Formats: sequence, C-alpha cells, structure tokens
Amino acid sequence: MSGNTFGKLFKVTTFGESHGTAMGCVIDGCPAGLELSVDDIEKELIRRRPGAVYGSRDEKDSPEILSGVFEGKTLGSPIAIIVRNSNQNSKDYDEIKDIYRPGHADYTWEAKYGIRDHRGGGRSSGRETLCRVAAGAVAKKFLALQGITIRAWTSSIAGIDQPSPNEDDFDFEEIERNPFHVPGKSGAEKAAAKIEELRAEGESAGGVITCLVTGVPIGLGEPVFEKLDACLAAAVISIGACKGVEFGAGFAAANMKGSENNDKPCEDGKGKFATNNCGGILGGISSGQDIVFRAAFKPTPSISKPQKVLERDGGVKEIAIKGRHDVCIVPRAVPVVEAMTALVLADFLLLSRCAKV
Amino acid sequence: MSGNTFGKLFKVTTFGESHGTAMGCVIDGCPAGLELSVDDIEKELIRRRPGAVYGSRDEKDSPEILSGVFEGKTLGSPIAIIVRNSNQNSKDYDEIKDIYRPGHADYTWEAKYGIRDHRGGGRSSGRETLCRVAAGAVAKKFLALQGITIRAWTSSIAGIDQPSPNEDDFDFEEIERNPFHVPGKSGAEKAAAKIEELRAEGESAGGVITCLVTGVPIGLGEPVFEKLDACLAAAVISIGACKGVEFGAGFAAANMKGSENNDKPCEDGKGKFATNNCGGILGGISSGQDIVFRAAFKPTPSISKPQKVLERDGGVKEIAIKGRHDVCIVPRAVPVVEAMTALVLADFLLLSRCAKV
Amino acid sequence: MSGNTFGKLFKVTTFGESHGTAMGCVIDGCPAGLELSVDDIEKELIRRRPGAVYGSRDEKDSPEILSGVFEGKTLGSPIAIIVRNSNQNSKDYDEIKDIYRPGHADYTWEAKYGIRDHRGGGRSSGRETLCRVAAGAVAKKFLALQGITIRAWTSSIAGIDQPSPNEDDFDFEEIERNPFHVPGKSGAEKAAAKIEELRAEGESAGGVITCLVTGVPIGLGEPVFEKLDACLAAAVISIGACKGVEFGAGFAAANMKGSENNDKPCEDGKGKFATNNCGGILGGISSGQDIVFRAAFKPTPSISKPQKVLERDGGVKEIAIKGRHDVCIVPRAVPVVEAMTALVLADFLLLSRCAKV
Amino acid sequence: MSGNTFGKLFKVTTFGESHGTAMGCVIDGCPAGLELSVDDIEKELIRRRPGAVYGSRDEKDSPEILSGVFEGKTLGSPIAIIVRNSNQNSKDYDEIKDIYRPGHADYTWEAKYGIRDHRGGGRSSGRETLCRVAAGAVAKKFLALQGITIRAWTSSIAGIDQPSPNEDDFDFEEIERNPFHVPGKSGAEKAAAKIEELRAEGESAGGVITCLVTGVPIGLGEPVFEKLDACLAAAVISIGACKGVEFGAGFAAANMKGSENNDKPCEDGKGKFATNNCGGILGGISSGQDIVFRAAFKPTPSISKPQKVLERDGGVKEIAIKGRHDVCIVPRAVPVVEAMTALVLADFLLLSRCAKV
Repeated sequence: MSGNTFGKLFKVTTFGESHGTAMGCVIDGCPAGLELSVDDIEKELIRRRPGAVYGSRDEKDSPEILSGVFEGKTLGSPIAIIVRNSNQNSKDYDEIKDIYRPGHADYTWEAKYGIRDHRGGGRSSGRETLCRVAAGAVAKKFLALQGITIRAWTSSIAGIDQPSPNEDDFDFEEIERNPFHVPGKSGAEKAAAKIEELRAEGESAGGVITCLVTGVPIGLGEPVFEKLDACLAAAVISIGACKGVEFGAGFAAANMKGSENNDKPCEDGKGKFATNNCGGILGGISSGQDIVFRAAFKPTPSISKPQKVLERDGGVKEIAIKGRHDVCIVPRAVPVVEAMTALVLADFLLLSRCAKV
Repeated sequence: MSGNTFGKLFKVTTFGESHGTAMGCVIDGCPAGLELSVDDIEKELIRRRPGAVYGSRDEKDSPEILSGVFEGKTLGSPIAIIVRNSNQNSKDYDEIKDIYRPGHADYTWEAKYGIRDHRGGGRSSGRETLCRVAAGAVAKKFLALQGITIRAWTSSIAGIDQPSPNEDDFDFEEIERNPFHVPGKSGAEKAAAKIEELRAEGESAGGVITCLVTGVPIGLGEPVFEKLDACLAAAVISIGACKGVEFGAGFAAANMKGSENNDKPCEDGKGKFATNNCGGILGGISSGQDIVFRAAFKPTPSISKPQKVLERDGGVKEIAIKGRHDVCIVPRAVPVVEAMTALVLADFLLLSRCAKV
Repeated sequence: MSGNTFGKLFKVTTFGESHGTAMGCVIDGCPAGLELSVDDIEKELIRRRPGAVYGSRDEKDSPEILSGVFEGKTLGSPIAIIVRNSNQNSKDYDEIKDIYRPGHADYTWEAKYGIRDHRGGGRSSGRETLCRVAAGAVAKKFLALQGITIRAWTSSIAGIDQPSPNEDDFDFEEIERNPFHVPGKSGAEKAAAKIEELRAEGESAGGVITCLVTGVPIGLGEPVFEKLDACLAAAVISIGACKGVEFGAGFAAANMKGSENNDKPCEDGKGKFATNNCGGILGGISSGQDIVFRAAFKPTPSISKPQKVLERDGGVKEIAIKGRHDVCIVPRAVPVVEAMTALVLADFLLLSRCAKV
Repeated sequence: MSGNTFGKLFKVTTFGESHGTAMGCVIDGCPAGLELSVDDIEKELIRRRPGAVYGSRDEKDSPEILSGVFEGKTLGSPIAIIVRNSNQNSKDYDEIKDIYRPGHADYTWEAKYGIRDHRGGGRSSGRETLCRVAAGAVAKKFLALQGITIRAWTSSIAGIDQPSPNEDDFDFEEIERNPFHVPGKSGAEKAAAKIEELRAEGESAGGVITCLVTGVPIGLGEPVFEKLDACLAAAVISIGACKGVEFGAGFAAANMKGSENNDKPCEDGKGKFATNNCGGILGGISSGQDIVFRAAFKPTPSISKPQKVLERDGGVKEIAIKGRHDVCIVPRAVPVVEAMTALVLADFLLLSRCAKV
C-alpha cells in the first residue's frame, strides 16, 4: 500500500535506497513462457546511464535475475531482479545531512516518516528509476509478442524544441545515437551547446519527452477511473521531476472548437481515423491509433550555483551542492517513460483478456 | 478490477449507465463518526448541473442514502448513495445506434466489450461524474474536519483566460455566482458572449480548470509510484474530456533553469517556502504549501454542426448530433475536479496514519 | 479496504444494514455478454429465506437491478443490485440497545468504531448474506457457461449426521425439497424432530455444510498466498457463525500416513485420479477433480432461554432474547456457501486467462 | 495479482524457486522507526530448519537485508530480504522430471503454466515458507511494540495428541527445546518413537498445530469479508499441506447448543469474558480475548515407500521417492503459522488506525 507496487495483473514492486546495499524489483504476474535473459534487462539499463549512447556499456549496473526464469523462459512465478549499489563513500553526504535540498523529497520524507536516509536521497533518489527500467524491459518483451512498440525521445531540452515526427529532420535512428535522445542531428548539436553553457553557469535544465506507441490493439484501458490515459498519467507523473502530462492535442485542445478537435474518419480505407487529436485513446480505451503523449520535466534541482536552503533546525543557509549532477536528467528519463508506459500496457493487455464471457 | 473503484482506504465504487435505472456509488472505508446528511451530497450535486448557479435547485437529481449512516453519523460501514435516472425516451437515441459518435467511447467500448448501451453513452456518459461528486461530498466533509479546503474554478474557457488568484479582479465568491465558475465578473461576461457565439455556430468549446487546496498537512502521498501528484493526475485525467494536467509551474518548468524553478525558503518566518513552483508537492509528498494544479479539457465532441462519423458497418456518414448538449462542459467539471481531489486526499490522509510505528 | 469488497477481477462490494433503507451489491468485472435477469437472482434469494423449500416465494426480498445489464445481457459495466428492507419497527430493538448480545459483533463493533446500529446487528446481521447470494447468482451463471456446478447441503445438523454422496440414501434432489437442505428424507425427519425439541427448550443448534464443485477445469488458483483452498477458506469463514473449514480428508489427514493420504492415479483410464483426499486442489491449484470441503457453523447465539450478557455500562444482566430467531441457521447458510464458492471460482477463472503468454 | 503478495498495508511479496538463485521477500508498508537487524530475522529462520532446536544454528540460510533499514531502524521504504540457495545438483531431480509427484503441485503447475521447474518443486517447494518466516519476523517486532505475542506449537503429531495449555504437563518453555515443538517432555518422547517407526517403514506423518495470540487489542478485523478469522484462515491454509483450520470451539461448536457455545460474561471483574469458545473473535473482530485456532497438516507426500504416480506422458509408474525428506513437516510449520498470523495482525493493526474520524 505504501506505493512501491505498480500494476494489478502485471505487478511490479521495487525497492532500494540509492546508497543502500542494492536496488531491485519483483515482477509478479508476468505470464509464463516468455523468453527472458539478463541481456534483455541490461540493454535497457544501459540506455538510462548518464550520457548514454546506445551500444556503450556501463559495467556498474549489472542486473542479476534471482528467480522466475527457468531454462530461458518465465515460469509464471515472480521475477526478482537486483542491482547492487557500488561502494559509495557515505561521508560525501555529511554536508547535506542537516539541510533539506530544494526540489527534493528531503524535507517531506523526514516530516512524513520521522527518519531519513540523507545519502543521495535514499529511496527518493533518481536511481530508483533503474528498477522501473529493469521491470519495463520485461514488459516490453511481452508487448513485443503482440506487436506493440514504445518509443520515447526528448522533444524539447533546455528550451530548445526538437523536430516532430512529421518533420523532415526527424530521425528515429538518431534518437539512440546522441546522448540527449533527441531525434535529429542539428537539434543534438544545439542541445549540446546549451547544456554546456548551463553547466558553466552552475545551472541546470528541464525539458519535454514525447512518447509514441505503435501497434496498440483496440480495447486497452477501463472506461471509468482506470482509463488508459489516467493510468499512463499516473505512471509518468510518478517519475521524479515530471510536472505535467498531456495526451494527443493536450492543453492545445482547450482552445479548439469541437469541429477542429474531433478526429475525422478515414475515407480512403487506410485505417479508421485520419487525424489523432485524441492521442489514440477514446473514453479511456485505446482506439487502435498510435498512442501519443508528452511529459514535462523540471530542471535538476541540485545545482552548483549557490542557493539558499532550509536547515533541519529551522534556519536558512546558502550552499552550493557538490557532486556530479546531471545538468539535465531528461535524456535519462526517456527509457523510464518507455518503461512506465510498457508496464501500463502490459497490465491492460492482460486485463483485456477478461472483458468478455 | 474493471476500474469502477477509486482509492484504497477511502474507497469509492461507482455504477450506472446514463439511461439505465439509477446511478450510484458505494463508499467503503469512510471513518466512523462523521456527520453526514443527504443535504451534504445534494449541495454538491447542484453545483454540477447545467448552467448551475449555486443556490438554485435541480429537483431531478435527488440522492438517496441507502446505508452506512445512523442517527446522522457514519457507522464505519459502506455508504451507498443512489440517484434514479428520470424516464428518458430511449427512442431519441435510435439515430446514433448504428454510428460511433466522434470523441466518445462508442467505438472503443463496442470493440472492447462486444456490446454497447448506445443511449447517451451508457456508462461512458458524462452523467457518470454525478457519482464522483456525491462521493466527493463525503470526502470533503472528512477533509474539512482536518482543515483542508478544495476550491476549483474555470481558469480559461473557449480561449478566454481568466484572472489568477494573485490578480486584482480574482474573486473567490464570484466563482459560485456565475454559471461558468470563473473567478471574475468581467471574465464571466466575456465567456457568456463567446459561448453564445459558438452555440449559434453549432460549435463547442474547451477550457482549463485550476484547482487549489489549502490547509494540507505535510506528509500526504507515497514516495515512489503513488506520489500525491501521480494519483491526482490519474484522478483528474480519469474525468472524461480531460486531456492534460500540470502541477505548480507545470510545462513552463521545462524551460526554466534550476535556480529559477527551485522554491526559495521563506526568510521572514511566515512559513517554510516563499515560492511554490512545486505546486505543494515535493518528491510525491505534500509539503504543507498549497497544492495547485491545472487540467485541460477538450471541447464537447457532440456538436450540431454537421460532421462526418464512422458507421458500425464500416462506412462513413455525415450527421448533425441532435439533443441538448452543453456547448462547454468545463464549468460542470469544476465540482468533479474538486471531488476527485477530495477522494485522493481523503485516501492519503488515512494512509498517513500508518507511516510511523 | 474496509473489507466490504470480495474478489479481484470478479469483484463484489456489498453494503447495507439489516434495518437500514436497503441492502445491495455492486459486481465490477463481470464479463460482458452474459445473459442475466432479475429471475436469476431472485431464484437464489428464495433458497436463503427461513424455512425455504425451493419453489415457494418470499415476496419480501425483491431484488432490483440498477445497472450493468442492457437488453438482457451484461454490459461489462458494474452490476448494481439492491433489495429494500421492509419497514421494521426499530423500537423492537430498544431492549438490546444497552447490552451486547453474546456471540454477536455488538461488543466488538462498538469498541472498534465508537458507534453501533443496534437494530438487529446492523451491518453484522445475517441479513448481510443476502447480498452475497445475489452476487453469487451472477457468478453461478458465468460458471455454468464453463460447465462448473456448485452444490452444497447440510451434512450435519444439531448433531445429526446426514448421508454422504457415496451412501445409498443420499439424494441430490431431496436437498431442495426439505427446509433443512439435507440430502435424504429420513435425515430430514430426524432433523425436524431435533430442531423442534430445541425450539421448545429455547435453545439453538449448529451444523456442518458440505460443498461439492463439479466440472472444475485444471489450473484455477495461484500457487503461494492465493491458493484456491486459501481463498475458499477465507470466503467461507467470512460467513458469520462459520468456525472451521476443511478440504478433502481435512482434519482426518493429520492422522494418516503418507501412503494412505496420497491420492492414487487412476489406472482404468477413467480420469487422472482414483481417490480424492486432496479435495480437488493440489498446491493451491485445482486438479480437475471435484472440489470438496466442509464448513462448521456454531449454534445461533440469539436464544430465548435466559442467559447472562454484558451491559454497555460494564455490568452483567440476565436476559431472554426476544423475536423470531432461527433455531438453526445452517440450512440458510447453504446457498451462502455456494455463493461464496462461486465468487472465488469466477475470480480465478478470469485470472487463469492470464497465466500464459 | 498472481498471489505472491500478502496483506494490504503491511504488504509482503515473496519470490524464489527452491533450486533457483535465491529466495526472498519485500515488505512494503512496515512503519518507519522500527528497530530491525539481521539477527531478528535469522533467529526465526533457525526455528524453521529441519530438526530445529532453538539455539543451534544453520549457517546455510543466511538472510541479507538489501534495503529499507538505515542505522538500525526501518525507513518507511520497502524492506527487501534475500537468502541465497546453496548450490544443489539439479541432476538429483532428473528422475522426477517426467513424473508428477503425488500430493505436490507438479501436475497442476504444469497444466496451469505450460512450464515447470521440476527441481524440488520450484516455487511450490516447502522452501518457499522461508520467506514467510523472514517477513513474519519483522511483523512480530512491530506487534511486540503493541504487546502482542504469538505462540504456536505441535498439538498433535502422527496421531499422538499433546497436552493442552490448561493441562499440567503443558510447558511453554519445552516447545522450543524439542525438535517436534510439542509442549511437553513425555509427548516429545512418544513423538520421537512414532516418527522413527514411520521413517523405518518409508512412511510419513501429519499433525495439528495450535496457535495462541495474547495481548490482542479489541477491534482488529473488518466485519464482512475481511473478518479477522477469514483472513487468518486464508493465511494458514495458504501454507502448503494445511488441509483445515478451526477457531475457538471450531468443528465441535457445530454439535453444541446455543447456551453451551455462547461465551459467558466474566462476573469477577477479571476481564470481559469467562469462556472463549469464540476463539477471541466476534463478528470477525478481535474481542480482546486470546485468539486461538488449530490447523491440520497432511502427511509429507514424498515417501520412500514405493507408490504409483502419474507420468507426464499419461502413463502410471511405481517409484520410491529418493532424497532426504522430513517424515513430518509439522514442527517446521510451527514458525510459519506464527509468521502468517503475525502478518495478518500487523496488517489489521495498521488498518485499525483508520476506523474512526
């Protein structure tokens, strides 16, 4: 109940503090008979590492599958995966022991639980998303069997908008080639320059991630509280630093007329709909169109530029937060958005088997 | 599991098709000893009716409490509330029996379940929100005991932005005085003119709702998947027609620098924070600041202007949708946003009792 | 969370106090396309009434279906059913307002919730099982489509054991012909005499119900915590007055040797197993054999013979409980045991659709 | 959903196959601030090992806490505990690869999932209970803070009944001193002789465990489906080999008269009740009396005496099952019964915080 479990049928429980012994997840409800290897998981974890360019390897986050797989296939029993945290010097964090870092859960965690692991955010660290990505890798394999593909990318970073899929310079291949996970070469160069500028200032940046799901069958999602978009929204907003989400036309739909926003039927026989303002979801249920949504991420709160912060004893202090922090975490959130989307879809795919007698 | 239940400890199950016998809800987990009357529920239902101005009465939606209340107080047992649907002529809907209305769940529901109540959307009708408002009324009473107040309003309608709380012409009292639930008199007049213009065109409009929660204790929300903002996002996006949600600085935060977005400590002793870009939620847990979020609603899809629609047999047809449809449902969604917010907070308020030994 | 919901995929929420306005249930997750009428529900409710002999009618408990059914078939949306309580004179209960009846929840409810509906037990009344039977009627219809049949009977009443299915005088037809739901004519006569004797003494009796499920597919139940027998045990013990449950050889197995208790393979090709000490469940999963279990019920605690009881103010008082109480509720619990069994099986039948990729 | 999670607020998810890499559990919802060490867990695991006499140590099952504990106290985040399986020669199991062992889940698991880890039962092995005991150790620490103590013992083994708490030769201390966990020295000797006799025959034995909980506050348990006894029944029947459970007077209550079974009020001021036929639970809610229940366990199905078994290809074969199997697993189930009881009580203890406004 304390919120470390996601999903109902394809159910994932994660655990681990950033500077504790290990991070991990348990996937309960993955159907039996799915081919699964450590490589499937490691491949996704690599995409999440800092400055990741697909193909290089970060040996540090080595997943271990503890259960649920037998002779290369899932057994129907829970799949437990762990990644040990490398030895970190906890003393590095002594400086922040008695302050509450701005924009982090430090202040609220301690108020809620009366105790806090101050080392790097503990359970509230961005490192927690590692487990989401591991679990998402399993969900993706299951979805792939049904022909469902999830692709996310950085569509805006540090204020620099990137090309859209209908634009010439949009290139799906490019997304995995640059460390910003932006879909175009020139956009990647502009991002690199801007990020460098911010780093020099001791500043940080936010951005927007777009997620596109293709091959979705009609009928995923439940019509009232557990609408597909409602569950995707929770999934994505639950990623630390995510401050907003919109589906299809999103906030822009608020300014449209009905005749503009209503999707038009396809009259050339090439599908059901000619437009997709609904983002592939009607009444909370997938329509068979592509699912499209956008998620906004705030700038990294840990900056080296001096700022005033709350102290545990009630005072206020100016500090420059030390350590290697990502100027922008948006690129690293790309596989996390994909993973959360995969978890939602895997859950609803199973549930859809129960809709009719 | 089929998504008609919301919440975990303060748990609401709703039922009913718009043209069936009755709509209703069952609230399981409302703590015992709460004073509750039919009036508490009716008061909120009135705010949801078309063109509602607080104080007038719609006799049609009369709630009946079937259980859970004894001598004016909740018993700790489930509170069942029903509202009978008035007799409606189902023949009115014969015309749409064999088409799928655009922007509605008609097409997806039928694909998912193999059967559809075509009369007014059945379970997917906007009338379903009546039950949310009834349940929310109970949650609000519980929250009020803890000093928590939820207020939402139309902050943009048909493209006309309304004043913000920090602006001079913002007036909380005004919200309940005009049928658009906008917070200012001149904004209400502009909205009225624009809505009339759209009605004449056979068109419809969308808008944005802002929700503000005051008196929130620190510590509501769980730190990983069930973050307070994640659950609020699901709650709000689960309202039909809602296409996006953002917290605090929201999408704008994506373009800010870290030093701009990080909230500043309060140095004059009047609270903990001087700014509220986080929207009152840090790491998924309430910070004791006001909770602020905005939700975007698409224009009503049922319009009298002729439009092309899908037919059940696979064809395409042009129709003008008949019947009395709201040009803009945004004002009616205001109490629904409040209700969903109340349900989330009531749930987390109970859960917060279990955080420490 | 407060325990008024049963099941996960075929999910039933019940509500209502015995002397409140109405009792009812909401079934969420019943697959769409199931034929369902009020008669299906009424038929089962009749079996639950006092002294019921199948075929007679109790007009008082008339169920009304409020939602979820359209043109005779389930829609995939929640099925709400209510039964109004007839006007009862609450004054009848003034006498027990300030005492805690022995063997009832009076004392514990009030301690837990700080408030109690003293009229007839309120939510803790045996009348609550009416809603279980209504929901079970729907589950039974779904199970019947898969060829699953559930039959329970009184196998012991007031200390008088009744014939077993392998005995000559066991007759399935007889179960519905006598008011004790015992499976043999002579057993019914002996029960009638014994019950009459107890009634004259102002006493009450308990008994045992046996439940037999035929046509069960292999594979229902989950292997660890949600074993089929574990869930059936919870389902049956949750019926007020049930004090024990055993599966297959049950408590007798504790005294057997391994070679005696292990079920033997069938060597004549007429099935898989020649014996059924396991009660049709192996490792928590149905084996395709008949499911067999027995449940013990205590005697009705409300007796007219004077007894000492606790008073609300801490004292002790002698009273004879007035009103028409069943000398033995076991026969009325027979359809309730069937209903709970049906709910468990319907849930697992749906879940079994998700076991493999 | 696939049944590897137990509890709602104090929620435990277990994983692991007996011959996989590791077994483990994740406890989500343990309140923050509880003192917890590896020793607390190891102490309970030792009681579960074969032929355990408290105080000796089995170095093989060494638990490792991966998360959720910081500086000796729980953080409010999930507590993950793993125990690595020692290297086992999987070839030992080649002989049973193509048969279904009687009384095990072999046959039903394979039918359900289409794949089976045949090595020692995989997920369905009795080794799975190790994780229950680890999680139960944490729950016990939490319960101890509230003054709740859980003690179980073998009350009957291989047909030899052991003394009851009200008998002279009953000795709580003795339970942990003998490997059968029986509460008396002479009973232990008789059990030893009988078990040796059965071992010589290649046979096995079952038994009964009694569980007694003292210090229980009034008000635990929910009044309808989630009655305290219903949840305890599910908890205990979910332990492999458990075939029945009864509360208080249990099956014997079925033969009592109302006046015999109703518990009498205490008239000497030493508590509320003078008798405890209800087993400490009234209407599903704890009454403040001791909770008492008994659980029946079948004999170990793996015996060395030759027996006929089903083959995967549909045939029947005679085999003697090799390997070191416990003649009677009942003593090892004693700490498991305690653990499951602790999990149920911890859950309801948290939930009881939400009963009143």
